[in-house]
Order: sequence, then C-alpha cells, then structure tokens
Amino acid sequence: MPFSFRVTATDGAARAGEMTTAHGLVHTPAFMPVGTQGAVKGVHHDDVRAAGTELLLGNTYHLMLRPGAERVAALGGLHAFMRWPLPILTDSGGFQVMSLAALRKVTEQGVTFRSHLDGAMVELTPERAIEVQTLLGSDIAMQLDECVQLPAARPDIERAMQLSLRWAERCKRAFGGAAAGRALFGIVQGGDDQKLRTESVRALTGIGFDGYAIGGLAVGESQEVMLGVVAATAAALPAQQPRYLMGVGTPADLLAAIARGIDMFDCVLPTRNGRHGLAFTRFGPINIKNARHADDPRPLDGESRCPAARDFSRAYLHHLFRSNEALGGTLLSVNNLFYYQDLVAGARAAIAAGRFADYATQTTAQWAAKPDIEAS
Amino acid sequence: MPFSFRVTATDGAARAGEMTTAHGLVHTPAFMPVGTQGAVKGVHHDDVRAAGTELLLGNTYHLMLRPGAERVAALGGLHAFMRWPLPILTDSGGFQVMSLAALRKVTEQGVTFRSHLDGAMVELTPERAIEVQTLLGSDIAMQLDECVQLPAARPDIERAMQLSLRWAERCKRAFGGAAAGRALFGIVQGGDDQKLRTESVRALTGIGFDGYAIGGLAVGESQEVMLGVVAATAAALPAQQPRYLMGVGTPADLLAAIARGIDMFDCVLPTRNGRHGLAFTRFGPINIKNARHADDPRPLDGESRCPAARDFSRAYLHHLFRSNEALGGTLLSVNNLFYYQDLVAGARAAIAAGRFADYATQTTAQWAAKPDIEAS
Repeated sequence: MPFSFRVTATDGAARAGEMTTAHGLVHTPAFMPVGTQGAVKGVHHDDVRAAGTELLLGNTYHLMLRPGAERVAALGGLHAFMRWPLPILTDSGGFQVMSLAALRKVTEQGVTFRSHLDGAMVELTPERAIEVQTLLGSDIAMQLDECVQLPAARPDIERAMQLSLRWAERCKRAFGGAAAGRALFGIVQGGDDQKLRTESVRALTGIGFDGYAIGGLAVGESQEVMLGVVAATAAALPAQQPRYLMGVGTPADLLAAIARGIDMFDCVLPTRNGRHGLAFTRFGPINIKNARHADDPRPLDGESRCPAARDFSRAYLHHLFRSNEALGGTLLSVNNLFYYQDLVAGARAAIAAGRFADYATQTTAQWAAKPDIEAS
Repeated sequence: MPFSFRVTATDGAARAGEMTTAHGLVHTPAFMPVGTQGAVKGVHHDDVRAAGTELLLGNTYHLMLRPGAERVAALGGLHAFMRWPLPILTDSGGFQVMSLAALRKVTEQGVTFRSHLDGAMVELTPERAIEVQTLLGSDIAMQLDECVQLPAARPDIERAMQLSLRWAERCKRAFGGAAAGRALFGIVQGGDDQKLRTESVRALTGIGFDGYAIGGLAVGESQEVMLGVVAATAAALPAQQPRYLMGVGTPADLLAAIARGIDMFDCVLPTRNGRHGLAFTRFGPINIKNARHADDPRPLDGESRCPAARDFSRAYLHHLFRSNEALGGTLLSVNNLFYYQDLVAGARAAIAAGRFADYATQTTAQWAAKPDIEAS
C-alpha cells in the first residue's frame, strides 16, 4: 500500500486528514510520542497504544549507535524489534548529532561525530541517514538537515539552510530505491527569517517530497516568533501534503500550530514532564510533588478516559514521587500521553465540525480552572 | 468475615490450603510480592494481579515514616490508598529497623531509632507496631520481633528470642481491640538453634495466634541450615494454622520449604533481580544483559502465560537494559512475578494431586536445560 495523505476537513487554516501507511492509518492532527531508543521512556507499548497513539517517533541517532541499524534490520526491522505494529516515523539523526555528540564536524559530505556512548567516530551523510532509516524500516523517513540554535546570525542560518537543501536532494536520490509504501519528508530550514524559510520551501517542493517538516524551531526563540514562522511557512507549503512541526510542544503550542495549518507533532514533554511530576489535565497542569497534594483523595481527573488519571488519588501519586517509586513517573507519563492524544483527537473532531476556534478557546480557558483548588 | 485457614490437601509434609480474609481468598502455598512503599517496585498493580498475586506484603517501617500511618488511615487505609483490593499482609517494621535505621536502640519497651529519611527519632513498641498496622488496615498483621544476624552467639540469639516472646504477648494484647476479620501472626525466633526454636514455638502457641511465621532465617546462614530449621520448626507448629517463612527466597528455596510444610513466602527477589536484568524462566535464570542475547530473536519463554515473557525478543530486552530504559526492568520484574506465581500455583496443583515430590524434581531438572542455548 503506497503512502498517501488526504485532507478530510478544513476550518480556517486548520486541517484534519488521514495518512495511509504500510502499517495503518494515521489521523491528523497527530501527536507522536518519542520512542527514543526503541521505547517510550517508562511506558509500556500497550499504554502508548491505549492512549490513542497511531504514529510513534524513533530516533535514528540513538538506534544507529545502539543496538545498531544493521542489527535491527537482521531482527526484522524496528516494528518487529520493538513489537510496535503501528506506523513509525524516524528522524534523520541530525538533530541529536548536534545536541548530544561530541566533536561533531559538519562538511558538505555530512557530519562526523564522536559517539556519546563509546567515543567511536561515526559519519552520518545524507545517504547513510536514508540507509539507516531504510534498515530500521520506518514508514516515514526524514531527510538529513542541519539545524542551528536560535538566535543565530543570518549568514549562519542561510548557510545551514542551503546545506540542508543540498542534503535534501541527496536524500531524495538515495531514497529512490527504498521499499514501496515508505514516505520521505523534506525539512524546511531558515531560522526565524521568513525570506529564507520561503526560499527553503520553494526549493524543497521543487525536489518533491511526500510531506514537509518545519525544523529549526523550538530551539530557543519565543513562542510568538515560532508561531509567526509556522503560519507563514505552513501557508507556503502544498495544501495536499502533510506538515510536521518538529519537536513541538506544549498543549498551547499544539493548539496554536494546528490553527496555523500543522498536521503532525512530536515532543518528549508528556513523558519527560510526567517523570518529573507534572501532570497535564483538562484543568491545567498539576505539580504532583507539591506538598498540598499529600492528603488529597481526588484523582487527577475522575472523568478521564485514562485509568492512571481516574483510579489513583493525588495523595498516592504524590507519595510515589516523594518515595522515588518509578511507578509514579510511569503513571504520570501515561496520564500525559492520554492527555495529548485526547487534545489532538478533540482538535480533529472540532475541525470536522467547523468549530476549531471555539475548541481552542474553551480548552485554553479551562486550563485556568485551577484543579488543585476547585475541581472535584 | 473472620479470618480462617483450612488445609485442603497434604502430600508428605507439603500442604495446600485456603486462607479466607476480609479482602478475599488466598490459596496456599502463596507467594507475596513486596509492595515496600505502597507499590511493587517498577510494576503496575494490574500486572501484579495479572501474575496471579492474591496476597501483597506492605512494609510497616516504610509506610509509618512516609506517608505516615495516620495519613494512610485518613485516606481510607492501605487498600484504598494504593487501590489494591486484594488481601494485604504487613510486617511489623522490626526487620527494617534493624537493617535500615541508624542509631537503633533495643530496650524491653521497644526499639528507638533514627529515621533514615529525616533523622527524626521514632519509637516502635509492640503496641505501636499493632496500632500502625491497624491504621494501615492490613488483613494480616505481624508481631514486633527482634531478629539477629547469623551467625550469632547463642546467648544473643536466646536473649532476642525471649524478648520477641514478651513482645508477642504485648502484641496479642494490643491486637485484641482490632477490627474483626483481621489476623495476627506470631514469629518464631531462635536462630539456628533448634532447642530455642522449639521453645519459641511452644511459648507462641501458648499465647495463640492466627498463624505463625518463621523469622530470623535467610540472614546469612547456609541453605542447609535454613532448611533444617524450617523442617523441624514447621513440624512443631500447629497443623491447622498457616506457616509463613519470612523473606524467602529463590525458586529452589520455595520448593524445598514447601516440601517441609511452609504455606507462605515473601521476597523481593523477583523484582530486584528483574530490575538488575535477571529473568527467571522454566529453563533456569537468564542474565539478559549478557552480550550473547544481543541478536537473539527468541522470547524468554514463548509458552509463558506472561506477555512480557512471550511477546518481546531477548534481543529487545537486552537492548532495553543496555540502554538503561526502565521498561526493561519493568518487563523482567513482571516476567519474574508471573514465574513465581506459576511456581506456587504448580506446587498447589501438585500437592492436590499427590505428586509434589515429582513436581519439585521435574521443575528443578528443567532449570538445567540452559535456555540460552537450547530452548526454542
């Protein structure tokens, strides 16, 4: 079954859609939990699925270093290795090379870096990034790109953007022979400079990809700057292909970006915050480690679809965190994954009903309800 | 419903039985996972139950210090606090005072110690141990006792045994007013000296308890010494009441102790070993961190009732441990809880069928099958 995408409803700039992949359907707007090293941190696959996840992100950088792409391929690919039967998107590894590896050196050819695991020198070229993702067998592969931390000088942003475009071409060429049904996404770069972003969009669409990501955001700039770039860039992208805002973000970021035409997101926030004691709820975030929860018999949200939100008291969750019991981080991570998936499911329904603006307004207003004091 | 126990089958010294508690039935021989601080480390309650657990152990020492027995009581007791609806046994706190607390001082009155959490001085008397367990609302409470590390001089063992007997009387008196349906167990002490053990049994049965534990074993002595004490002590205990061997043990320990008339066990081994990468299987233990598992597509045990044992490859589990993904420890802990519960369920069935000796022999023989090499 070849990869395809169709927009099923629009509401202003917001869109709902369906992506068809070899491992099943993905409804958009979609949120991807991050399965960094072949697992969503602290959460069993069954709970990731129960939350409503249809698409999982795997990190090429981590998996190529350990257990190794060739090993995963010999074990049947990432789906079989993890026992995750639903669609998987893999990043290209470029972002983590920049954030995790030591002694990285970017040249026209690619990026050479020292593995943070064993110190080995590793080369990641556009061709190798595609080869690794093909070995992993992801449903959606990403081009290799270079992303600069913001704020940055315009010449640096432009140089990285142009290099990313040349790598995009090489990725497209290398991907030509990949198994049918898999998709390749290009990545728009250009920092906070809309002229560069527009130039990047024009060149990428000229090459032609199955979908387009907006990279290089959520790397230090304000939300206002990010949303400005998102709005203009999404508007410039082809209407009939999926748009993916990489590494974003908070619930508020998701609503704002959906309103501006974004279809896909990935972020570690639900699980990272969950491990650190922050629970997202319909009534706003709750820091469960706060002492005021120690005697509170109420669940996080008695009306939630999520057993972790419904079945355990805040007092018990608080106790688990105070006692360093890993179950606490697991339960809050699960709660947060359900929260994120319900947030995008609500967005999909609202877009289909033509009332996305109301949905966003009501959802945001409810966050101010201060659940620690008032919710029952 | 009052606490009761009946022996349903015997096979040599081995017994199968049923304990009735206010929170349900417990089939013996029974294995109790340890819910140290109100949670079995790294494992969701649902998985603890799915493994076949009918009785959970809670640690009085931990819970009285954090979140505090009065707080748990105000939140409805330990069953409600944890959301664990099945029977719970609590220890008295004495063992952990000896192993965890600093500056402990044992007097006739009780034990005073410095909390390992905040340095506060805390007094645990027989009366307070009962009060705490009543506040927690456990189905089975344990008397406060003093346990000495072996090897120890006979006068030290005797002094602790005699003190434990006087504490047993005070616990029985204090327990008088506890809610109906709850049980109190006495603890046989006396180290590796059978004369002292027999004296302890005689005095405890004179006081009269709902069940009897054998304490002060698995504290440094050989398995041979332990089993000698177990056999003689179990034989001296009343036939119609449950016998609990505290803090034991390995699968081999369980089989050997069941053969000698023990009905109940608790141990952290399944979860502690699971977190450290050791999986118990029908074909013997597997150290999943060993490099030879890196490319092994076989599950731990394809015929296991446990999804963690059946659904994930050894290669994937190995990878999770190598990558420090907490999911690895969780999956192996779950596997091990299923293993232990299946081991005692098999023992119950074998005793009922009058073939326990064969069951123990076959189970032990199968451990030598070297699953890393031969099992499919």
